[in-house]
Amino acid sequence: MKNYVHAIPTKLYFGKGQISRLGEILDQFGKRVLLTYGGGSIKKIGLYDEVIGILNKGGFTVTELSGIEPNPRIESVEEGVRLCKENNIDVILAVGGGSTIDCSKAIAAGVFYEGGDLWQMVDSNHGALKALPLVDILTLSATGSEYDGGAVITNLKTNEKLGNMYTYPAASICDPTYTFTVSKYQTAAGTADIMSHIFEGYFSATEDSDLSDHIAEGVLKTAIKYLPVALAEPDNYTARANLMAVSSVACSGIPEYGKQGTGWPCHAMEHELSAFYDITHGVGLAILTPRWMRFILKKDPSCAWRFVRFAQNVWGIEGEDGLALANAGIDRLESFFKESGIPMTLTELGIGEEHFEEMAAHANFGGYLKNAFVPLTNEDIVEIYKACL
Amino acid sequence: MKNYVHAIPTKLYFGKGQISRLGEILDQFGKRVLLTYGGGSIKKIGLYDEVIGILNKGGFTVTELSGIEPNPRIESVEEGVRLCKENNIDVILAVGGGSTIDCSKAIAAGVFYEGGDLWQMVDSNHGALKALPLVDILTLSATGSEYDGGAVITNLKTNEKLGNMYTYPAASICDPTYTFTVSKYQTAAGTADIMSHIFEGYFSATEDSDLSDHIAEGVLKTAIKYLPVALAEPDNYTARANLMAVSSVACSGIPEYGKQGTGWPCHAMEHELSAFYDITHGVGLAILTPRWMRFILKKDPSCAWRFVRFAQNVWGIEGEDGLALANAGIDRLESFFKESGIPMTLTELGIGEEHFEEMAAHANFGGYLKNAFVPLTNEDIVEIYKACL
Repeated sequence: MKNYVHAIPTKLYFGKGQISRLGEILDQFGKRVLLTYGGGSIKKIGLYDEVIGILNKGGFTVTELSGIEPNPRIESVEEGVRLCKENNIDVILAVGGGSTIDCSKAIAAGVFYEGGDLWQMVDSNHGALKALPLVDILTLSATGSEYDGGAVITNLKTNEKLGNMYTYPAASICDPTYTFTVSKYQTAAGTADIMSHIFEGYFSATEDSDLSDHIAEGVLKTAIKYLPVALAEPDNYTARANLMAVSSVACSGIPEYGKQGTGWPCHAMEHELSAFYDITHGVGLAILTPRWMRFILKKDPSCAWRFVRFAQNVWGIEGEDGLALANAGIDRLESFFKESGIPMTLTELGIGEEHFEEMAAHANFGGYLKNAFVPLTNEDIVEIYKACL
Repeated sequence: MKNYVHAIPTKLYFGKGQISRLGEILDQFGKRVLLTYGGGSIKKIGLYDEVIGILNKGGFTVTELSGIEPNPRIESVEEGVRLCKENNIDVILAVGGGSTIDCSKAIAAGVFYEGGDLWQMVDSNHGALKALPLVDILTLSATGSEYDGGAVITNLKTNEKLGNMYTYPAASICDPTYTFTVSKYQTAAGTADIMSHIFEGYFSATEDSDLSDHIAEGVLKTAIKYLPVALAEPDNYTARANLMAVSSVACSGIPEYGKQGTGWPCHAMEHELSAFYDITHGVGLAILTPRWMRFILKKDPSCAWRFVRFAQNVWGIEGEDGLALANAGIDRLESFFKESGIPMTLTELGIGEEHFEEMAAHANFGGYLKNAFVPLTNEDIVEIYKACL
């Protein structure tokens, strides 16, 4: 069991109606609010009007940044920083999913960034940055951005999608009813993202960090149980609530406490897909994950014990033959994603192999994935991409 | 799934050697430190000298409060408050187990308490209080006081042992090596305490808060796996680390998020035992728990589903007959405690039935346990006590 430091300053307000606390939450920080959101789905479900009503009643001054993209772009960060500076913003209120929250984190930190070019902030090594306070209202169970300090920002000019640390939300309002109208496609993609956050840490060499592994398996079993329910009954509160609860935990780092780091290989490979083709992050992960699993199991069969545990503890598969069990678990996962209705090949997304080598080189920049559970070379990554066609 | 608010401000520094961060942690708060500890075991293991060395090197001024009792008493709280006021203490450093940390929490809040009589603070309804910052170094995996805001203080004059909310530690240093010398008796009692914290929330009417239940089962399975290892090999790092990791989570509230409250019936009943007889808390819990389980299962067989889940998911017991499964799970738990070597009857502790009615009335003051998983009357509690003889 490895050492760790655990502290997540975010206060989660979980459950139906928690928006009633919004005014008091924001009041801790000030009256000038930058309201950030995406493509307008929050208007369709009436959440925008509800938020504006609360802000008006509370005497807040509101500046808006709308249209934040699904893979949020550096241009939106730049615009947000400009608005914050112009309007002396006290607190950012992000209403949306992980993209809106990610973009808002980079804005919150960008306000204090002294380097000038904000892409330099995205593309440099740093820990948590000085930032404006950020409050969010979550509308999609997926990235876990509501309960971590990281964000992923895209630069379509350079075909780069880079994760980095910025700031934790001060408070996240997680009301599962806001996800009732999320499409089947986004629900399934979001759940694939949640599950991938677990896989990235679960498939680690550490054998003796039991609580982390139990939490990881609990998140996976919860997601596996409730995704089909949410797809069949979009307004099933229990299903939506369980998916939302696990989304926050999955990416929080908690399921990795005490475990050796892995470099998150599927995320590294997926970010290249999104950067080049602007695809839905969770779909890219769902496509990559079973292929990555099969590849590393074949490359280093000594890692099979982890896959056996996955098959037994997550899927409840029984059997004596370790390798057969390991493969059965991967098969079950691939079937699970297929049954959720999302595309499971890159070909279906119109992606061919023309950029695979460039993407592999960037995903593995500086030999980054040499410390993965099973180390990956650029050639390995190209092979995994090809298996996804 | 019920609503919840999640925020634990404590920063956990987990693992071997984390004491190297002590100076920088304390420096955030000031230079005048009240060092609190218990009966001197920290001197035997060299931890006292190490702490004093760090404090001297860092230029801290140290006032000491030693001799804090296993069930910490109001007199120690009073003495600590007096020392803080006299010496203008900036930060309390508690080195020990739950008793030392609990007492230190009450001291930290007592410094600002304006009611005069500190027992009134203990015996009144309040949430978190204004308090001095508290840092702790944990030496016993048991109460989880290192990662919650509560404390239990005893008044031997009135035979009362009352839990209340005070303040969260700002930081907890959790180094499993400090528990290598913990006796078999205290190791087993501490693990019973950890497991009881889970039982109190696990046996709830809520059926659909899956993540909480998975975390609860993960804590139990980890404790069950590693207690025998720690008893057989006291300096097994993996065993001690896993027990320490689950101790913090078990009492944090996290395993109860989304679940209906239960009133923590075993703790309510045990606090009476400790208040009247000053016994080891975890031993009292180990004695009470299987008897309480059998009693409620008999009183209301409709609650059997929870016990079936417990038998299957925690102990891996298989079978078709629900009631047989439920009982088998309870039997396994009782055997587990017995095998750990702690006394499993009140008679062994020299406790007879003379105060049972008074204790039951106090444990159930105002019908407190009418909202338990299976509601308990005073007569029920007397019957449970008698089953423990």
